[in-house]
Amino acid sequence: MKTDVISCASMTRAWQEAMFARAAHWEAAAQSAPVDQPLRGRVLATVFYEASSRTSSSFQAAMLRLGGTVVPVHSEWSSVTKGESLEDTMRTMASYADAIVLRHPETGSAKRAADAVPNCPVINAGDGIGEHPTQALLDVYTIWKERPGHDIDGLTVTIAGDLLHGRTVHSLIKLLNTYSIGRINLISPESLRLPDTVVKEIRAPVHVGTQLDDVLPATDVLYMTRIQKERFAKIEDFETVRNSFCLTRKVMSAAKPTCIIMHPLPRNAEIHPELDSDPRSAYFRQMRNGMFVRMAILEHVVPRFPA
Amino acid sequence: MKTDVISCASMTRAWQEAMFARAAHWEAAAQSAPVDQPLRGRVLATVFYEASSRTSSSFQAAMLRLGGTVVPVHSEWSSVTKGESLEDTMRTMASYADAIVLRHPETGSAKRAADAVPNCPVINAGDGIGEHPTQALLDVYTIWKERPGHDIDGLTVTIAGDLLHGRTVHSLIKLLNTYSIGRINLISPESLRLPDTVVKEIRAPVHVGTQLDDVLPATDVLYMTRIQKERFAKIEDFETVRNSFCLTRKVMSAAKPTCIIMHPLPRNAEIHPELDSDPRSAYFRQMRNGMFVRMAILEHVVPRFPA
Amino acid sequence: MKTDVISCASMTRAWQEAMFARAAHWEAAAQSAPVDQPLRGRVLATVFYEASSRTSSSFQAAMLRLGGTVVPVHSEWSSVTKGESLEDTMRTMASYADAIVLRHPETGSAKRAADAVPNCPVINAGDGIGEHPTQALLDVYTIWKERPGHDIDGLTVTIAGDLLHGRTVHSLIKLLNTYSIGRINLISPESLRLPDTVVKEIRAPVHVGTQLDDVLPATDVLYMTRIQKERFAKIEDFETVRNSFCLTRKVMSAAKPTCIIMHPLPRNAEIHPELDSDPRSAYFRQMRNGMFVRMAILEHVVPRFPA
Repeated sequence: MKTDVISCASMTRAWQEAMFARAAHWEAAAQSAPVDQPLRGRVLATVFYEASSRTSSSFQAAMLRLGGTVVPVHSEWSSVTKGESLEDTMRTMASYADAIVLRHPETGSAKRAADAVPNCPVINAGDGIGEHPTQALLDVYTIWKERPGHDIDGLTVTIAGDLLHGRTVHSLIKLLNTYSIGRINLISPESLRLPDTVVKEIRAPVHVGTQLDDVLPATDVLYMTRIQKERFAKIEDFETVRNSFCLTRKVMSAAKPTCIIMHPLPRNAEIHPELDSDPRSAYFRQMRNGMFVRMAILEHVVPRFPA
Repeated sequence: MKTDVISCASMTRAWQEAMFARAAHWEAAAQSAPVDQPLRGRVLATVFYEASSRTSSSFQAAMLRLGGTVVPVHSEWSSVTKGESLEDTMRTMASYADAIVLRHPETGSAKRAADAVPNCPVINAGDGIGEHPTQALLDVYTIWKERPGHDIDGLTVTIAGDLLHGRTVHSLIKLLNTYSIGRINLISPESLRLPDTVVKEIRAPVHVGTQLDDVLPATDVLYMTRIQKERFAKIEDFETVRNSFCLTRKVMSAAKPTCIIMHPLPRNAEIHPELDSDPRSAYFRQMRNGMFVRMAILEHVVPRFPA
Repeated sequence: MKTDVISCASMTRAWQEAMFARAAHWEAAAQSAPVDQPLRGRVLATVFYEASSRTSSSFQAAMLRLGGTVVPVHSEWSSVTKGESLEDTMRTMASYADAIVLRHPETGSAKRAADAVPNCPVINAGDGIGEHPTQALLDVYTIWKERPGHDIDGLTVTIAGDLLHGRTVHSLIKLLNTYSIGRINLISPESLRLPDTVVKEIRAPVHVGTQLDDVLPATDVLYMTRIQKERFAKIEDFETVRNSFCLTRKVMSAAKPTCIIMHPLPRNAEIHPELDSDPRSAYFRQMRNGMFVRMAILEHVVPRFPA
């Protein structure tokens, strides 16, 4: 039986906590020379049909730090241009590698990929507007780590920016549903609202609005997302939105001293660099957490050799 | 003295059998934690002037599984765009790496490359319409493995599809000439026939035709190749050919229960996915064999450190 | 405290000699199986915003030969296209890797990058027309190695070709200033002269000219650089220059038997291949020296684990 990581839907709270414990273990272990290299002799294929630096690099670094090795494949340099099906490409990589990390532009592609290779674990690193489960897991891990006592229940989480296109947000909401979140505020321009179908999924009390100011003082976790020019028909609309969604020192003066600022990165203008030195800015720590969470995931899914 | 792998011409039957034994060894070894890593400390450069996923990835995985490491070079990201000669590029990589795998669009380029670096083994991973010797070796290894008693002599081998452009087929025929093949059937559309010069090389009795049905019942090894739209002037011609060269369950009902189906992959429509679960379909096993054959080749050519 | 390698300005003679000794050590060590792998467990990110084969591959091979691992990032496949700042990209890679090698088209970018990541060493692998300090170091290492007694002081060094655009030359001159060079001859077409600001920096006696013949007989080190067609407005101008700057056996007959020919490579027509077998041609040895110098640099800057 293989273990895939395709969707947040299967991530119970207990499973998450087990992953968080291992991520914390690997973070501590990174301070000294590697003793335990559980994936020594194992090969990971990273198959990316879209450009990426963060996800791809952190999975590569995670595998290497576990003692394994990596064969990176970019679609540009693969047989995709020769008309090969995703299933056949996965079968190819599964015959060389012990696990596959896949990013693909089509929703549902990760599930299809996993079904095509019954003996090889597949990790979804983003399937179009579908899911990005390891991002969601590292997001929740960041909250877990940043909060004293690891309390996630009861928090007020504000998610702001482009809530329409971000698969990251959709996956995060699925995962937050496994906790008793105090309140979720969804703040976006009217044209970039979270789809109603996703809003309906949320188990916590929800507030939908367009103004960050209204909700900032009560916010414990402020999750910003990138606002992209391409999403707007008129450049003026973009300019207006960008200005009202730019987090600055002045804006943050209204927030709690314990509020944490998160962002999946890359950022555009949503967070002013002047906030980088604010201790509440958790987005760079969040990024590093990503590597350790991915170490935990790889350790979990890549088969061990028999002892 | 270095050992290159440039052409099938130098591959005697005894040499092939030695390689097959090592490939089988590495396949068995893959079931447990690596003990013997003969290429630890060695660096392989994979230099690809054409897109590839299968060949490039399997060589990379092979090197890593032998305990070595890989520096991958794609022509897009090399100095080729600055007008460097192939010889100079090879000298560059030979000064950093202990062996080079080269794919290049020009016939004869692998030989030129090998001559440019007297102290560094070069493996030809496809030189234009020239040769692709490691593909041919893994093809014959697949026949050797699939046949009970490893009997290759006496078999009826049918090669079908585009026989004009495929370097794979040209290399395979060279290698089959080292055996006493019972009969080789060459089945292709008229416009994609195997060049007469290559037909004349064949040592076995040959049948040249356009209909697969005629020869399928007596076939022991059915080697399909990809038919590409780009090869046809008129789209209707392509459609006609594609339909008559599509292997389905119905077509295969006329074949022996022991017949094996091979394909170098990627496939287009030549083999219907409904055949994937047919035990006679050897093409996915063939792909995996490729990695183990390449482990045998790398083990053979990459110099060992003095004990 | 981290150690960056950003500019030649900080490279004292004593520091260079320490590096040269380690480079020579690693060259000798390459003859036998790796025993000392000081960077085992460490991850290097190579971040290239411009195509490269030599610099990128030699850094990768250097890291692997030290027992470390590599995560390669090409700008094409990174988030740069999503509008991320260089600083944020560096922070990303610094959270996954233990050191970063950066090539970037903007002068000063390496310094900016190093400043953005206070805990992660950054090595400048070329920042526009700024510097390329590891190239300069391997150049001087080559002179040091090739000269009996490692004498660099007192030599006559002739630098020829395109002296206007080459960052390589600008860095090399900075480094030669730490020695008592006998004379530096700067030979180039009028339109490609070394900028006066750089000429003024030179501590050794300088001769500026357009004819190689005048200075060749007295030259100890002949450093050729690439002349690129793109630099010329008229193709005829390029043709004229190319012909007068092509080193042949005939031209070299006027040079000393102990004169060494260097070139950062890739070369175009500046050095005729007929000279490759001339024992004075040091450019291929120079290239291999690059890997060992980069091993010394990586060993120097990548933090060790506490014992």
